Amino acid sequence: MTTKVFGHKAPDTDSTGSPIAWAWYLSEIKGTPAKACLLGEPNTEAAFVIEHWGLEKPEIIADVAEGEKVVIVDTNNPAELPASINSAEILQIIDHHKLTGGIETTTPIDITMRPLACTATIMYDLMGDDVAKAPRGVKGAMLSCILSDTLEFRSPTTTDHDRAVCEALASDLGVDMHELATKMFEAKSDVSAFSDAELLRMDSKEYAVDGTSFRVSVLETTAPKMILDRKASLMGAMETVAKEDGVDQVLLFVVDILNEEATLLVPNDLVKGVAEKSFGATVAGDTVVLPGVMSRKKQIIPSLKV
Amino acid sequence: MTTKVFGHKAPDTDSTGSPIAWAWYLSEIKGTPAKACLLGEPNTEAAFVIEHWGLEKPEIIADVAEGEKVVIVDTNNPAELPASINSAEILQIIDHHKLTGGIETTTPIDITMRPLACTATIMYDLMGDDVAKAPRGVKGAMLSCILSDTLEFRSPTTTDHDRAVCEALASDLGVDMHELATKMFEAKSDVSAFSDAELLRMDSKEYAVDGTSFRVSVLETTAPKMILDRKASLMGAMETVAKEDGVDQVLLFVVDILNEEATLLVPNDLVKGVAEKSFGATVAGDTVVLPGVMSRKKQIIPSLKV
Repeated sequence: MTTKVFGHKAPDTDSTGSPIAWAWYLSEIKGTPAKACLLGEPNTEAAFVIEHWGLEKPEIIADVAEGEKVVIVDTNNPAELPASINSAEILQIIDHHKLTGGIETTTPIDITMRPLACTATIMYDLMGDDVAKAPRGVKGAMLSCILSDTLEFRSPTTTDHDRAVCEALASDLGVDMHELATKMFEAKSDVSAFSDAELLRMDSKEYAVDGTSFRVSVLETTAPKMILDRKASLMGAMETVAKEDGVDQVLLFVVDILNEEATLLVPNDLVKGVAEKSFGATVAGDTVVLPGVMSRKKQIIPSLKV
Repeated sequence: MTTKVFGHKAPDTDSTGSPIAWAWYLSEIKGTPAKACLLGEPNTEAAFVIEHWGLEKPEIIADVAEGEKVVIVDTNNPAELPASINSAEILQIIDHHKLTGGIETTTPIDITMRPLACTATIMYDLMGDDVAKAPRGVKGAMLSCILSDTLEFRSPTTTDHDRAVCEALASDLGVDMHELATKMFEAKSDVSAFSDAELLRMDSKEYAVDGTSFRVSVLETTAPKMILDRKASLMGAMETVAKEDGVDQVLLFVVDILNEEATLLVPNDLVKGVAEKSFGATVAGDTVVLPGVMSRKKQIIPSLKV
């Protein structure tokens, strides 16, 4: 039986590239037939990465079958995984997020979680000397994952080790990191094809604080104006999305990668209060700029207050 | 602040020796001041190991304080950990048990779980070349952990890697593994000082199957007669222990290490049914021998049926 390797729903570059890299490692090095899968359409940056490195687009799957062998990467949160995940045979988890606590296994399995910026960095370490055997596309996917998750080393999640692994891969491939990152961020910034609801859900995680539930959405872009020009219709769509997804409020942070700041849309007094209490911001109008805020994991979620 | 490193409640050799080894590694190699702790009195084998290698007996702690830095080893099950575990700052988890799903963290942490027989084997790998710097007592503790958890390679949980690491440690220390294991198992077998209730709880884990909850107790011994001679009073104590611990039934498996079999005490029809349905046993009388059964993790829990 072929083992399916996948990341989280709404796949970004790390949840697209890391499964590709790990499926190669399992199949070609460990002798465990494996294939990368996606839990939805990759975002525009991930689609660019697939195209750029000449990779095969992984199959999109809706759920997993009972007893099916799977490897989970880049998440350990059941809410971000197929509905039947706990009935699958989970062989391994490789992740760099907080421990959520909803995954259970019936036997001991192989789990590696590290407080690093990127899943691909952990995989690089786990592969050891075998990295040298990886084809160009696999190395390129890993390089792209790290550039994406670190926002080219701008994100405060970046560790020295992420940077060192990224530089080693770039040097090995003879690739200009800055040029590649620029193309990736441009691809990510082209969100013209997405509806407001799609944008609000694209890179979002649910999080509850003091009884109020949020869909915390982050859009990383080098062209914030393209999104902020749509702020009226985005704020209009927030109510529908919140209702459909069963949360109290959508929070949309537009992260300006190049200027290293986030703009939070402020559709109502609830979000105004969140901006003031969480980030000490002074809100006048329907947006507020939060200087230096780049990371949901390191900066937004830990600060969130209602 | 000194980081506390501990294993599970009712500490056996692995939950005593592994914290000692990891606290050494964190303090002396990683520069993170750390100390080993115990969540209860070590069992007689673990007490022997502390004495044999001239180690300091770790402090026994009842709970952890809010925000206290801790490293959890040899378990990931909140039921086997201090009541306030989720309010501590968990820095790391190293374990070889199934993922239970009750531990949550607020940030990404370092987690290493491997399907190996022993926590100390995983630590040996994580330490890499630094193992060579470990004092004799630390290496001896790790060696003892592996001999204990593998029942000197008899347990079906044993992997080639556990054996290889154990042999490397023994060779490095110039220790006769069989001689050491024999002394350890003799120490574990001397249960004369324990009450019936203490014996039933000594090495036990709660497990529910089809709505019936069990305390699944395993006593590994080279002198099964010493325990089986007490079977009448042990069966009498089962009811009290079950009531006090809020489970439906205590199951006591007396594992004969040398003969590689388990004897299950059969106090009533519920347990008779469990023996028949789980192990295909034919029960006549108040005990039943289960040939080859050595491991709760690999053989008892996965087979349990009501």
